[in-house]
Amino acid sequence: MPLLDSIRGPEDLRRLTVREQTALAEELRAEILRSVSANGGHLASSLGVVELTIALHCVFDTPRDALIWDVGHQAYAHKLLTGRRDLFASLRRCGGCTPFQSRAESPESDPIGGGHAGTAISAGLGLQTAWQRQGSRQRVAAIVGDGALSCGISLEGMTQLADCGAPLVIVLNDNRRSISHNVGGLTHYLNRLITARRYLAFKGILRSFLGRRPGVLRRLRRLLEAVKVVLLPGAWFESLGVRYLGPVDGHSIPELIRVLATARESGKPVLVHVITRKGKGYAPAESDPGKYHGVAPFDPGTGLVSSPGGMSFSRAFGMTMGELAETHPELVAITAAMRDGTGLAAFSRQYPERFFDTGITEEHAAVFASGLAAAGMLPVMAVYATFFQRALDPLYHDICLQNLPVIFGLDRSGAVEDGPTHHGIYDLAFLLEMPGLTVYAPLDEAELRAMLHTAVKRRAPAVLRYPRGGTGRPFDLSQPVPEIVPGSSEQMREGSDCVIVVCGPEALAACQTAERLSRDHGVEAAVLRMLTLKPLDTAALRAQAAEKPVFTLEDHAVTGGLGQLTAAALTGMTAPRRVFGWPDQIIAHGSPAALRRLYGLDPESLAASIAADLGRGK
Amino acid sequence: MPLLDSIRGPEDLRRLTVREQTALAEELRAEILRSVSANGGHLASSLGVVELTIALHCVFDTPRDALIWDVGHQAYAHKLLTGRRDLFASLRRCGGCTPFQSRAESPESDPIGGGHAGTAISAGLGLQTAWQRQGSRQRVAAIVGDGALSCGISLEGMTQLADCGAPLVIVLNDNRRSISHNVGGLTHYLNRLITARRYLAFKGILRSFLGRRPGVLRRLRRLLEAVKVVLLPGAWFESLGVRYLGPVDGHSIPELIRVLATARESGKPVLVHVITRKGKGYAPAESDPGKYHGVAPFDPGTGLVSSPGGMSFSRAFGMTMGELAETHPELVAITAAMRDGTGLAAFSRQYPERFFDTGITEEHAAVFASGLAAAGMLPVMAVYATFFQRALDPLYHDICLQNLPVIFGLDRSGAVEDGPTHHGIYDLAFLLEMPGLTVYAPLDEAELRAMLHTAVKRRAPAVLRYPRGGTGRPFDLSQPVPEIVPGSSEQMREGSDCVIVVCGPEALAACQTAERLSRDHGVEAAVLRMLTLKPLDTAALRAQAAEKPVFTLEDHAVTGGLGQLTAAALTGMTAPRRVFGWPDQIIAHGSPAALRRLYGLDPESLAASIAADLGRGK
Repeated sequence: MPLLDSIRGPEDLRRLTVREQTALAEELRAEILRSVSANGGHLASSLGVVELTIALHCVFDTPRDALIWDVGHQAYAHKLLTGRRDLFASLRRCGGCTPFQSRAESPESDPIGGGHAGTAISAGLGLQTAWQRQGSRQRVAAIVGDGALSCGISLEGMTQLADCGAPLVIVLNDNRRSISHNVGGLTHYLNRLITARRYLAFKGILRSFLGRRPGVLRRLRRLLEAVKVVLLPGAWFESLGVRYLGPVDGHSIPELIRVLATARESGKPVLVHVITRKGKGYAPAESDPGKYHGVAPFDPGTGLVSSPGGMSFSRAFGMTMGELAETHPELVAITAAMRDGTGLAAFSRQYPERFFDTGITEEHAAVFASGLAAAGMLPVMAVYATFFQRALDPLYHDICLQNLPVIFGLDRSGAVEDGPTHHGIYDLAFLLEMPGLTVYAPLDEAELRAMLHTAVKRRAPAVLRYPRGGTGRPFDLSQPVPEIVPGSSEQMREGSDCVIVVCGPEALAACQTAERLSRDHGVEAAVLRMLTLKPLDTAALRAQAAEKPVFTLEDHAVTGGLGQLTAAALTGMTAPRRVFGWPDQIIAHGSPAALRRLYGLDPESLAASIAADLGRGK
Repeated sequence: MPLLDSIRGPEDLRRLTVREQTALAEELRAEILRSVSANGGHLASSLGVVELTIALHCVFDTPRDALIWDVGHQAYAHKLLTGRRDLFASLRRCGGCTPFQSRAESPESDPIGGGHAGTAISAGLGLQTAWQRQGSRQRVAAIVGDGALSCGISLEGMTQLADCGAPLVIVLNDNRRSISHNVGGLTHYLNRLITARRYLAFKGILRSFLGRRPGVLRRLRRLLEAVKVVLLPGAWFESLGVRYLGPVDGHSIPELIRVLATARESGKPVLVHVITRKGKGYAPAESDPGKYHGVAPFDPGTGLVSSPGGMSFSRAFGMTMGELAETHPELVAITAAMRDGTGLAAFSRQYPERFFDTGITEEHAAVFASGLAAAGMLPVMAVYATFFQRALDPLYHDICLQNLPVIFGLDRSGAVEDGPTHHGIYDLAFLLEMPGLTVYAPLDEAELRAMLHTAVKRRAPAVLRYPRGGTGRPFDLSQPVPEIVPGSSEQMREGSDCVIVVCGPEALAACQTAERLSRDHGVEAAVLRMLTLKPLDTAALRAQAAEKPVFTLEDHAVTGGLGQLTAAALTGMTAPRRVFGWPDQIIAHGSPAALRRLYGLDPESLAASIAADLGRGK
């Protein structure tokens, strides 16, 4: 890779000819393909913005100027061009290159980190406003996908931008799809814009026509001037006070440079509408960009993904939804742009009229669900735990306070590979304080099915919390559905020396820990599993705590989860000896197994810690 | 009030003549004025929509059709017309009429309750979609203020509405101000629309002109048709796919009825732009609608408000901001439409260039703050605790993970008069799990000042949590500022029989409780006050817990707050005997003092409970 070898930073890039820049784009693609096929990652969106990344670094005075990549999963080329080429081979590995922009990784080139969609305009506006106030001429470009543009924060940010007139450049990276596919009025509007170029002719024709009759039509001309803002394509943006440029071919570096330079020089809020192709340059990703959005390691030659396949909580959730839909005509499914990830693809095809993908709008989706429920429907919203943070207020205000039967499938609860922006380890704290909410923690896929049946039967606000992946335990829709009693617990192992209180699939790790304790330390640990965290089986807990020391284990931060809940339930008794969970610090990226070893949460480390605490260490 | 006496429900209203309806409007105003002047409440916005309320009930087939009042503080006339006239005299009193729409109060006329801005479109869309799917012809009108329209949820909801085409009627109640005053590009746009009627002439002139030259200008006419959507006023909405009607005089019942009927009959998504005057019909409120937005009891004759006045946490916060601004040029203040309520009015006048009111956009405001901080500014955002629920994700994702020095003044933490939608009693649970966040709980106004100084000095993510109102304790900017050490505590009272662990101004109640315990029960209780909840002074806590039983007291839900935190900190020791705080259920509206008595959280009840628990009850 002769060209890429010579790029130590953006300034080297700006010295290349157009022909060299085009060649560099292909080198960047090859480099991205190599790392992502080896480590997994966000392939399709990164391939789509290679030329855009080069053009942005040419036009903007980086790293003095700032590029804020919304979400940041498309920032791989940006990383490769800003001194992180060596690091990039370790993409997503524990201790290696981060999956998104990261202030810690590059304070110079990543002034703002990210991972959740829709924040770039607001953060960019803050940065640009501060620089203006400080008299600096530094400039900011916020690169936002078409899916993230209809996210509430983006729209809120855009209205303030229009109000204050800061010279922020918004680059709308329009690849015609968010993670699933795009929905919403804005998308229809963008689609119209792309074919709207011919309407520009209207103005020209009218002008020339009016020019020939100056006396008669002066008033008409004045009116034309007054309404010109709405005559232009991009009127939606222009009427807010944001100048619209485009659409631009996102794979033509010269065209991009020309338009971006105009935008940067304008000194006003500008939106540049760039059309890119997701997966560009890699045939398998071009033809199925959804599959190669976030992808596991794969064979770059064939595109074959070495996915684990098989059953998973997400798949079991989707299958159970299909099962329940047959007998419950009022059941509907909602997702905020995560149809495939949450296992709802089959449901959406089977019941298109009972499936709602609202786009990247977790807040709206939850309030919308409350409205459906108020009319007697039974909405089930599947959402990743980390994105659910955006729906805390609707959960309280629009669902629990109204006592409306909305059920949430909280997927990706617990630590995940993508790192701190995506760990679902902060949900229990706010879930457990919601009045009237039932919080289920299924042990495995079969119990997820049983709990979803129970939640549907009970018609009350409920959350089912389950991690990414699966347990490998049997799942069979032909089996009878056991009854689940909220507020119950299961004694998974007897033992007289201590009790490990646990919930969800972490109970399997607790049982392994207990086996190790027995084998290696002669400690007999009981394992008490809580089927629901709210209500909590306080009686069972107190009965065991009266007899032996209590330890707790959870796939959640140590603050606000099962450990604290247990401690508070033991009023006047001996509090837990130790609360095991993710420590109160930023938890890095890497495989959950590697992270567990790193933080002493694997069965071997847990057994050693418990034995030591009981004075039975080796 | 002869007319109002005859209105038992909306059907009676529809029998009135236009003249009678106009007279009824004045009766409704008098009734609203009577209750609000006696009990306090939301006056100006309620007075502004009296005619609109009458017109809506005439056009829509209520209560089969649904009216969803965004926020709901303008729903007083709606309450008076839907069978709650007798109840209305007890507005906002403990056990009396609720301040907002409430499903519990009227399942028939309030299918969805509310209190936070921006949810009506999304909830209404859910209701309307469900009714459509069920084959019902019932219709929904969502009445949204101009301030709430630029809230992210509203905008997210509007894009889904445009996508699905449900026949929801959005009534934009444009009174030209949200609680403080309106900001944002959308507002400028709405202002332009109001004066845009004359542009409609453009289309007429052009049509007649083109009509005289049919042969030559056929192509031009076709183009005109193609762009007509952007030629109309309301193009912003129309380009999303929502039909725009208006602007309409919001105080003309006949005009309102005409346009609303068109909207209801259209069978498509429609936005009706209604211009109302906040405070209409009551001179003091018309001339100062901000003052009479949410108002304490006042003399209806003179408009004089019997406000407590004096010092308050909010005022102390604003004064300290002014003090710090002098010495810290990088300090800026941010509010999401709550300038006056959070005590920032004086600051905004003194430092207009360093003050940002982003409108009702808590999510955006917090992300915007992170951008300002990334450029070296020191943003302090003042926000009510209940509205802060919308900024949980930015707090984690954009501030704590980025380790950016954004400081939050969390006003109205703890129980407030407005009821469940507004209680700030759920914040600690999610604050305490945020990595790297410092959570301060000032005892009084003077300590709030000291803690804000400390937070500014330390340059790290921080939250200062304080309730509505004040303590009555001295506050003097000329006094020196004491040093605050995060993770410290104060022994406010010695005592050997038990210790009450507490934080914030609740410590004053704990001391009163201890005095009562001593006087009435012979129990000597120590009071240990935590200056910060994160970090927590675990050493002091454990030292006391080793000697005596622990009780905890907080102005927060019992789940997720100081009590649980204390329990978890006492690993291996005796857990607290009891955690005093708001119980795990929906906490009603009413004065905080009345609510404390109701839930046994006043010093007298607390002393009795503690004494009983220690076997020293009487």
